[in-house]
Parts: sequence; structure tokens; C-alpha cells
Amino acid sequence: MSNKFIVGVIGAGRIGKIHIENLLRNIPEVKLKIVADIKLDNQLKQWGSEIGIPYLTANASEIFTDPEIDAVVIASSTDTHADFIQKAAKAKKQIFCEKPIDTDLKRIKETLSIVKEEDVRLMVGFNRRFDHNFKRIHDAIVSGRIGTPQIIKITSRDPSPPPIEYVKVSGGIFIDMTIHDWDMARYQAGSEVEEIYATGGVLIDPEIGKAGDIDTAAAILKFRNGAIGIIDNSRQAVYGYDQRVEVFGSEGCVLAENDTPNTVRIYTTQNTSIDKIPFFFLERYMESYAAELQYFFNCLQNNQNPSPNGEDGLQDVLVALAAKKSLKENRPINLSEVDK
Amino acid sequence: MSNKFIVGVIGAGRIGKIHIENLLRNIPEVKLKIVADIKLDNQLKQWGSEIGIPYLTANASEIFTDPEIDAVVIASSTDTHADFIQKAAKAKKQIFCEKPIDTDLKRIKETLSIVKEEDVRLMVGFNRRFDHNFKRIHDAIVSGRIGTPQIIKITSRDPSPPPIEYVKVSGGIFIDMTIHDWDMARYQAGSEVEEIYATGGVLIDPEIGKAGDIDTAAAILKFRNGAIGIIDNSRQAVYGYDQRVEVFGSEGCVLAENDTPNTVRIYTTQNTSIDKIPFFFLERYMESYAAELQYFFNCLQNNQNPSPNGEDGLQDVLVALAAKKSLKENRPINLSEVDK
Amino acid sequence: MSNKFIVGVIGAGRIGKIHIENLLRNIPEVKLKIVADIKLDNQLKQWGSEIGIPYLTANASEIFTDPEIDAVVIASSTDTHADFIQKAAKAKKQIFCEKPIDTDLKRIKETLSIVKEEDVRLMVGFNRRFDHNFKRIHDAIVSGRIGTPQIIKITSRDPSPPPIEYVKVSGGIFIDMTIHDWDMARYQAGSEVEEIYATGGVLIDPEIGKAGDIDTAAAILKFRNGAIGIIDNSRQAVYGYDQRVEVFGSEGCVLAENDTPNTVRIYTTQNTSIDKIPFFFLERYMESYAAELQYFFNCLQNNQNPSPNGEDGLQDVLVALAAKKSLKENRPINLSEVDK
Amino acid sequence: MSNKFIVGVIGAGRIGKIHIENLLRNIPEVKLKIVADIKLDNQLKQWGSEIGIPYLTANASEIFTDPEIDAVVIASSTDTHADFIQKAAKAKKQIFCEKPIDTDLKRIKETLSIVKEEDVRLMVGFNRRFDHNFKRIHDAIVSGRIGTPQIIKITSRDPSPPPIEYVKVSGGIFIDMTIHDWDMARYQAGSEVEEIYATGGVLIDPEIGKAGDIDTAAAILKFRNGAIGIIDNSRQAVYGYDQRVEVFGSEGCVLAENDTPNTVRIYTTQNTSIDKIPFFFLERYMESYAAELQYFFNCLQNNQNPSPNGEDGLQDVLVALAAKKSLKENRPINLSEVDK
Repeated sequence: MSNKFIVGVIGAGRIGKIHIENLLRNIPEVKLKIVADIKLDNQLKQWGSEIGIPYLTANASEIFTDPEIDAVVIASSTDTHADFIQKAAKAKKQIFCEKPIDTDLKRIKETLSIVKEEDVRLMVGFNRRFDHNFKRIHDAIVSGRIGTPQIIKITSRDPSPPPIEYVKVSGGIFIDMTIHDWDMARYQAGSEVEEIYATGGVLIDPEIGKAGDIDTAAAILKFRNGAIGIIDNSRQAVYGYDQRVEVFGSEGCVLAENDTPNTVRIYTTQNTSIDKIPFFFLERYMESYAAELQYFFNCLQNNQNPSPNGEDGLQDVLVALAAKKSLKENRPINLSEVDK
Repeated sequence: MSNKFIVGVIGAGRIGKIHIENLLRNIPEVKLKIVADIKLDNQLKQWGSEIGIPYLTANASEIFTDPEIDAVVIASSTDTHADFIQKAAKAKKQIFCEKPIDTDLKRIKETLSIVKEEDVRLMVGFNRRFDHNFKRIHDAIVSGRIGTPQIIKITSRDPSPPPIEYVKVSGGIFIDMTIHDWDMARYQAGSEVEEIYATGGVLIDPEIGKAGDIDTAAAILKFRNGAIGIIDNSRQAVYGYDQRVEVFGSEGCVLAENDTPNTVRIYTTQNTSIDKIPFFFLERYMESYAAELQYFFNCLQNNQNPSPNGEDGLQDVLVALAAKKSLKENRPINLSEVDK
Repeated sequence: MSNKFIVGVIGAGRIGKIHIENLLRNIPEVKLKIVADIKLDNQLKQWGSEIGIPYLTANASEIFTDPEIDAVVIASSTDTHADFIQKAAKAKKQIFCEKPIDTDLKRIKETLSIVKEEDVRLMVGFNRRFDHNFKRIHDAIVSGRIGTPQIIKITSRDPSPPPIEYVKVSGGIFIDMTIHDWDMARYQAGSEVEEIYATGGVLIDPEIGKAGDIDTAAAILKFRNGAIGIIDNSRQAVYGYDQRVEVFGSEGCVLAENDTPNTVRIYTTQNTSIDKIPFFFLERYMESYAAELQYFFNCLQNNQNPSPNGEDGLQDVLVALAAKKSLKENRPINLSEVDK
Repeated sequence: MSNKFIVGVIGAGRIGKIHIENLLRNIPEVKLKIVADIKLDNQLKQWGSEIGIPYLTANASEIFTDPEIDAVVIASSTDTHADFIQKAAKAKKQIFCEKPIDTDLKRIKETLSIVKEEDVRLMVGFNRRFDHNFKRIHDAIVSGRIGTPQIIKITSRDPSPPPIEYVKVSGGIFIDMTIHDWDMARYQAGSEVEEIYATGGVLIDPEIGKAGDIDTAAAILKFRNGAIGIIDNSRQAVYGYDQRVEVFGSEGCVLAENDTPNTVRIYTTQNTSIDKIPFFFLERYMESYAAELQYFFNCLQNNQNPSPNGEDGLQDVLVALAAKKSLKENRPINLSEVDK
């Protein structure tokens, strides 16, 4: 037991709870010691007791000051990420942080610079890279099965829009929702984005438009290696959570269809029917959350740098900012225009 | 915590371990108190400690005599099932037992009679009824989507034969392997078997023939409601664990294909390829083990009789014995011939 | 033009018309000269004129006596097949005949003996061997992709029963409908049937039972090479014409799903739906009719014996007769019992 | 016979031959009278004689001056289309013309104006609208199954690039290859394009770049009704002719996968494999050529205006020109910029 990683978690909201459950049940290499959440209410206390959290606090600094803690999992609200990363780095803790690091470029760079100085490891939680389908695509590419990637296509559609109040503070669809797709495109392309044209419209809910955002989006990315990325988003796919990736290459094509809840087909006088795809991301990506944490601790164990890392977190935000600018100015934006 | 079911498990082998993990992690209604296994070695002790088993013993009777224990999960070797069921019943414990109850008809009936006398609940672990695909088929039938079932087809093929030593004591393919399919056919047909013709051959390994068994089998069942069942088995499907069910009815047809590890397709100059199906039952049916236990405890909670129950266990063995007789005599066997 | 095969067709009913259209449009190696049909009415004359039949007659013997005619395509009613084959053989014409040759064993053998004596070629029209799916399965087997065939499974279900009047004179489901499946099983197994157990019931229309037939059937075949065949039939699959074949072998498994009218999937809030499979054999097997005739004339051109030949026609009827006997006596029948 | 349409065909190249075969074999409403081709060599004469063309000439004007001719099918080289349409219109013939009408806007408009003046019908041969898959998508949209179309996605990839000599005179990928996709997008969107951003690169063959063209392309279209179109093209999909369409709407999503040559799956120890998709457009779209001609003559018969018509031909070229301009200037182009 002594050679297990001692871990603290900051944030026990929706994603935080998933990480905590995985740390307690599915990652044998770790021992969860502290969970910090500023909203330390009775409901959380009861949940923590039932699931077996050894110690709950409202004060995250207890994690940083605990000399036994090896690693920190940050799953608090986005605006706290950079601060907690910096504090964790200065306390020499290894860091797993939910995406995004921040939405302000300067703040991200400052944070990454501290991480570098303190020489700790930082992984950013782009869990979709650990999805069974999308990882399999990546493996196929890496193995050379489809030659050089030329076109990366991502379909990413939510089942229903978030509340308008959320939309207003979300930073816009490109940084709130498409951030996963920017990262997926970069992951599969094996290259950085050079230029982007992004557009879209308000086709679902006029309230989203009034909040200054769009609900339907499309973008074309040009990568440094010449590959072309194509992404489409919708805030409302009434048939479920539509998550598909396709990579076309010089020697073939690899694609992942949506997962289905079962393999059953029903043939009737009307048609043949298949059950609907899973409803939302907690169902669809559940296993990927366990896989990413497992991978993070395997990296620590093997003294390797995890990926996606801080630089990935930075690049994804750069693309998002360029997309916003492209939408606003209706012209393609070179990433150098936003990365000054 | 006081209103949780207090549970003891007998047997911590391959299946027993799965049940124990599910009880500890995935069934919130229970509290595992005791695990009994006659081979209480250091390896098991270490595993038990790591996973959090509160108390480990070599002596199953500690479970029966503990007044706090509400329910027993029996996952020991087949020859001990009847004895443990009887003891558990007499100790007024609710019982979940792995299949089969026994392979001797008289012993099964005697056991069921004691269960009835003692008025405890007994569920037999035909986990495939709780598989996401096969349960979905059942739901479609029950909902009337395909009308009256007329033909039930089951493809059930193992990836590779068991060791010859196992084959010799297995009781033959029809009671060792096809037992799951007899149960599945009855489950989907919604009726009892009246007559069976079973046949097969030794096409994979002559050693299996020398051991008095066959490795490839086919059977046609006639159900009391007129439906026809068709089952085929092989001990060696080199491409993986082939598990499919189809029910054809008066108003349609419902079928389940094999699960696949992902939804990825790779298109090359040669062909389009999909990854192999899962290798064996621990991968394929893992979730069904949690689902069946969860269901069992829900039944206890709601004071309902679980299904499949002891009568199902009996009927499945009856069909297996008729199948053996049919193979031996090469003629259709009416179940009344084996159920005297 | 002089080196084209000059062809006569006997019978211009449903299948005959398909053969005539193929001869006129799709088989460049032939020149259709005469079509004979005993029901030479105005409707047929008009159709013949529109489609371009050079000469129509009610008298088939005009075909046999025409010294220019090289080959005869026989598509008249079953009871005339043997007679026309014999006459064609004696006139030294090459013969393509619709299945079955006859339903009487003695008559089939006598006919085949004349064909042999006269040394002409005879192909029997088991068109499904030329279906794009089932031929692909055969090719996969022949190429060794799945090793030695061990289990051959055929699902063959009609969309709706024929008229009762037809059922009464059909000779029973095993010789009328399953005949295609006996042939398909033999084709894919690459071996002859040794023993058969056939059963079934009246689950769709009691009138079929009153006519002395069954409407739902299942059979297990044992082939001389040890392979096992499994066939199921229904006279009424309400969702369309269900035609599937699967061959399981020592090195893999090959199967053909049903054809679909298009590849479209519609995702809605209810489910994902696919259009129904094609309704019946004229839609499903249309291309196979052209392919089998093309193959027949290629054989003639290359001086090769076509397959399926007369012996295939004989074996398929033998299996059908054994199936009838098995159903009647409810026991497995060795083919030697019916082939005396 | 007197009430059949008497038809002349101009051009007996690759596509012309397909139209001629369909007119002779599959369209009962017509009688083919004249075929004109400027390259009237012996090979063509022999083919014409074998297939049954009544009269072959090198002089297209024989068609226009023949008072018996009702309709003209124009399948000559693109640069002759406008001229032949104008001549046919002035001769009061109904017109079916291969795409595009012309690549010069002024010339197209002038031609359409003459068609209008002469009051004849004009259909442009966008055969993919008559493809079994893409028409099925359209039907689903029209029936309201997916609500309002919001995103139209088209994947259109050729199996291999044309010869460089062809590329040099093709007018560029957007007018040569993507023209089909502009039309398909408009067809499925049910709206006209307002703005387009098109980009791409030379990823396959540098010679294509030297010829002033690109071989890989992507475009985002904005339709007047708010829908967004996304198209990607490649000149070289090594795995076959990749043709897919997807329409996402407010109430669902409809998509068509690629056709496959058969439904066979082969399961081995390596993977599960499916045969490659069809190689190129003659295989893939063969039936659509017959369907479009059949539809054209049905329109004539029912006195209806066929669709796609001249206006469609004009719009598709407008989009292509805007795409070229967008690629050149690397900015979104409003269609009004090219339609002056």
C-alpha cells in the first residue's frame, strides 16, 4: 500500500464525482486521501460517506499542504483551474486537470510556465481521446493502415441545448462545446492547426442567438501538414448524442459510427428498427473517464509525460479563439492572428 | 445502513469473484459480510483484503449460522449446489445459486421441495437473461412487437474447447455448455419444451470424442405452444465468442448480432474490416452478472419471486438429459421420457 | 452472328418470361429463335411482339425438330420437365431445365440415363447458386478463408403463403419450397446428405394443415463429410423475403445478411429505421437468373459440364423425399432409405 | 407504337452509350430513331448494329431537321451542349442534356432564354438525384420525417484522379467533379446557396497542382433558408468510390452509407471483413441513368416540367464559380459576387 499514489481531488460536481468513483473503484494504483469542494453540504457528505471518501473538506489548500499527497485531480469550475494548477505545481504535486486550463491565453501561458518551472507533470482531461472508438481510430492511423491523414471529419452534436443561463456564461459554443472537437481533430491529424474558417447560425433556439451565441456550427481547419479538418456541431440532435469521427488517408479510411445500446434489430411490416443511440455524454463516455485516469497514473508510474498535456490545452483554446474571430469577421483566420 | 441486505458468498472462484466485486461495488442495497471458500489460501486472502472483503472463512456453515445474514450467493462447484441450497433454505436465507442446481433430477426435485417448505426465495444464475441484447429481445416479444414467437434460433459457440480433463467430468456438452441455450430458448419462447431432437459430431478434436463427448451440436426443440427452437453449438469458433439469438414471430422478427469491441470500420484497398468480436464470456457477459444480482436484490426488496427460479433450473436440466438421450439413440425424445 | 447459340425456350410463364428477356437482352452469345408455350393467347403474342421474340408457337416439338436449334431452355410446368428433357436430349440439344427435373425418383433416373446416353449437357436451374451473396459465400469457402465447413445454416422464409389450391398440388413444403435450400446446403457443404431429421408445424394457416402440409419447418442434415446443416422455413415472414446463409468452418465463419433496397438510415426520437427487405423472389433473385443463363452458355462455349447438373437435381429430390418421410415418421431418415 | 416518343441521341461516348442502351431496352415509352456522333468510326458502327440502333450519322442536324423526332438526348462534349440545346429548342424538340449546360454564365443564360422562348422542356442530367439512396433521403425529408434540414453533409471521393491532360481542360475540381455535389446539396437542402467558403489542397499528385488545380477539397455552404452545407472531395479514395450523403434536421437525421457489392461478412481470427465498395460511377450509378431518363419521359407524357431543369443547371454553375473564387481569394463568397 505504501507504493500507491496518494491523491487529492478538487471539485465533487458531476465530473468530479466520476473521477472520485473511478479513483476509489477502478484505479488500483492510487489511494484517495482528500476531496475538497467549496460546496461542502450534507448531501455531499452523505455521498462521500457512502462511497468511502476518507476525508472531505471545503478547503482545497489542505490538499496542497499535505506532504503525503502525490497527485491532484482538478475538477472544479473552469475559472479556478489555472489557480489550482499553479498552486499544485508550486506544491510539487502531479496534476490532472479538467479542460480547459483557462480561456485567457495569457493566463494559460503563465500557468504552463509555472508547471514547467516546477517540473511537475500536467495532463488535461480530454477524455474522448480515451474513448474505445476514437482511440481505435488513432491506433489505426498510427499503425499506418490508412497512410497519411488527409481529411479529418468530426460530427459532434448534443442531444439538447444547455439552459440559456449557462449559454450566457459559457464563452460561446466554440470554447464550450467544440473544444472537444478541436482537440479530437488535432489528435487524429497529428499536426497543429494553421488556419480556420468557422461559421454557423441560430437554427434551434432564438434565445441562444439573443445570448450572443450560435447553436449550429461548421468549421474547416487547415493543418500544418496539409490535412483538412471538417467539424459540424449542433446543440440539438433530437435522436441522441451524435458522436462520430472519420479520418481519410492516402491508403484508406477509418471511421467510427455511434455506439448503440444493443445489437438488436426488429423487423416488422413497417421497417427494420434499431434502438436509439445513448442520450448524453455521461452514458457515452463513461468508460473513457476511467481510462484517462488509469493512463495518467500509469504515466506517473513509468515516469512518462502524459498526453494530452498543457500544450494541447493551449492549442485547443487557440483554435477556439480563432474560430470565434472567424465567425465574427466571416473570414478564415490564421492562428498567428490570435496567438500574439 | 441497517436496512441493507446482509450477504454471504460461498465460493470465490472465477464466477464467485465477479459476484463479490459486484456486491462490493455495484449493488448499493447490500452489505457483504462473509465470503466462504474451501481453498482459503494466501492468494485469496490478499485479494480479499485488497478488494475489501470484511471476513473470509473456509467454512460455509458460518454463513448459515450467522443470524444477521439475509441472503446467500452460492458460486461453489456444481456438486455442492444442492447441499448448500438446502442448508441455506433451512437457515431461512434467501438464495442466489449458480447454474445448474444439480445434474441429478431426483436431487434437484428434493432440493426444490425443501426450498418450498422453508418458503425462501431461490434464483438460479442464468445471467444471459440479463444481457443487454437478449433482454431487449425478450422485451420486444413481451411488448407484442413480433406477435407470437414461432421460431427461436440460438447460435452459441465458444472460442476454444476446455481442457480434456474438464470435458471428461463436464457431464457432456448438452449439460455443460448448451444448458445456457436451453434456458435462453425457454426464456424467449415463453413455453416449456415438449420434445427434442439433438445430434452432433466430433469435428474439432478427436480427444473430445474419446472422452465420450461431442464438440459440435445441433438441436431442434418443439415447445408446448407450437414454437420451434433451433440451437447450434461449437466448442471452437476461432473468430471469437459467437453469441446470437433470433426470434421469428407472426408479426415480425427480432434478432441480436454479436457485440463488437468498437464501431470502427477500416476501408483499405483490400476490404473493409471490423475488429473481432469479444473473446469469451467474462468479457461478453460481464455486465449481465451485475444486472442479475441487482435484479435479485430488487426482488427481495419488493418481496417478489425472482426469475429464473428453481423450476427453470429443473426444466433446463430436463431438456439437457433429453438431448443426451436423443443424441445416444438418434431419435426425438419427448421430455416425459426423462421426467419420470 | 453465325457462331451464336441458337436457342428455343419452352414455357413463357413467370420464370419463362425472365429467361426470354435475359436471352434477348443480356446474353450476347445467343440468338433466341423459337418460344413454345401451350397457352399461346393474344396477350402472350403481344408481349412477344413487343419484346422481339422472332417466332412463337404452341408446339414445343418445333424446337426439337429444328436442326438449327443448339440449346433448349425448359421453363414449362414441372410435370412436363422430364418429358421435354428426354425429347431435347434425343434431338441432341443442350438443355437448361428449371428445377425440379421431376418429383418421382424413377422418372428422374430414367431421364438422366437418357441424357447420358445422348451425351448432351444438362443444367438444372438452381438460380440461387448464382446469387451475388451466396456465390460470394461459396467463393470464400473454396478459397479456404474459413477452413473446413462444419455448420451450414440457412434461413429461408417466404413473405406470404401461396394459395391453398397451389399448396394442395405442390408436393409439400419440402419439395416445393425447401428444395432450394437442400440445394444451397449441398452447394455450400461441398458434400452429399447422409441423414436428415425434418419437422415442423402448422403455425400460420390451419387450411395449410388441412391440405396435408405444414407451413413452418426445421431440419437438421448430416453430410457425408461430417458437416451439419440446419434449415428453417416459414411460409409467412411478414417483414419480407428472408434469405440468409451462414457457413461456419474450422478457420472462420462467412454469412450473408438480407439485401436491403437502399443503405439509408433514419434517426428519429423513436429509433433508427431501415427500409424493409425486398418483398419476393423476383425482386431478390432477378440478377441470378441472368447470371445462371450466362454461365450455362459460357459452359457450352468452353465445352464444360455445367453445375448444378442432373445429379444435383436428383440429390435435392432425394433429400426432399427423406425430409417428408422424416416428418411423417418423426425420426431421422438415412438417405439410403428413400433411394432404393 | 405511334404514341411512343421518337428520340434522337447526340453523342455516343461513355455516357451516351448508357443512354442509348437504356432507350433501347428499359424505356418502353420511346423509340430511338437516330444517333449522331461526330466520331462515326467502324467500332461505333459495329456496336450500333449489334445493339440495334436504327440509324447512325455523324451529323447532329439530321436530328433537328427530322420532323418525326420528339425529343433529343444530348450527351456530346460539354462545349457543344449550349449550341445543341439552342438548336434543339428552335426545332421544338424536348431536351434532355448532360451536365453542365456550359461553364460560361452568359452562355447558360442566353441558352435558357431561348429554351423559354421556344417553350420546350429541358432537363439537365444530374443523375444522382435518381440514385436509390439519395432519392430515398429526399423522400424522407419531403415526408417530414426529419423536420427542417439544418446540416447537409456530402462525402464524394473518386477512386483515382483523371489523367493530367483531362485535369488541364476540366475547368477545375469545383466545376468538373464537385458540380454533382453542389446539385445534391441544393436538392437535399430545398433552398438556394447564398454564400460559400471553399478551400483545399494538393495532397495526392503534385502534377495536379502544376496544372493549376487541387485534388482535395472542402466547402461550407450557407443556404437562404439558414441550412449549412458541408462537402468534402478527394480525387483518390484508394478503397473505392465513396459516395455518402447525410441530412440533419430539427426532428432527426437521415443518411446513406455506401453501397456494397454483397452483404457477406467473413469472420476470421484476424477480423471481420466486408468486400470493397464499388469501384466507380458506372457501377455505382448505373441504375440512376435509367431512372432519370424514365422520369424525363414520364414528365413529357404527363405534360410536366422535369427537375432538375435549366435553372438548376445554372445555379450549380454559379456555386462552382463562387467556389473557385473563394479558393483563389481565401474568403467566403456571396453568390451575388459571381452572378452579375
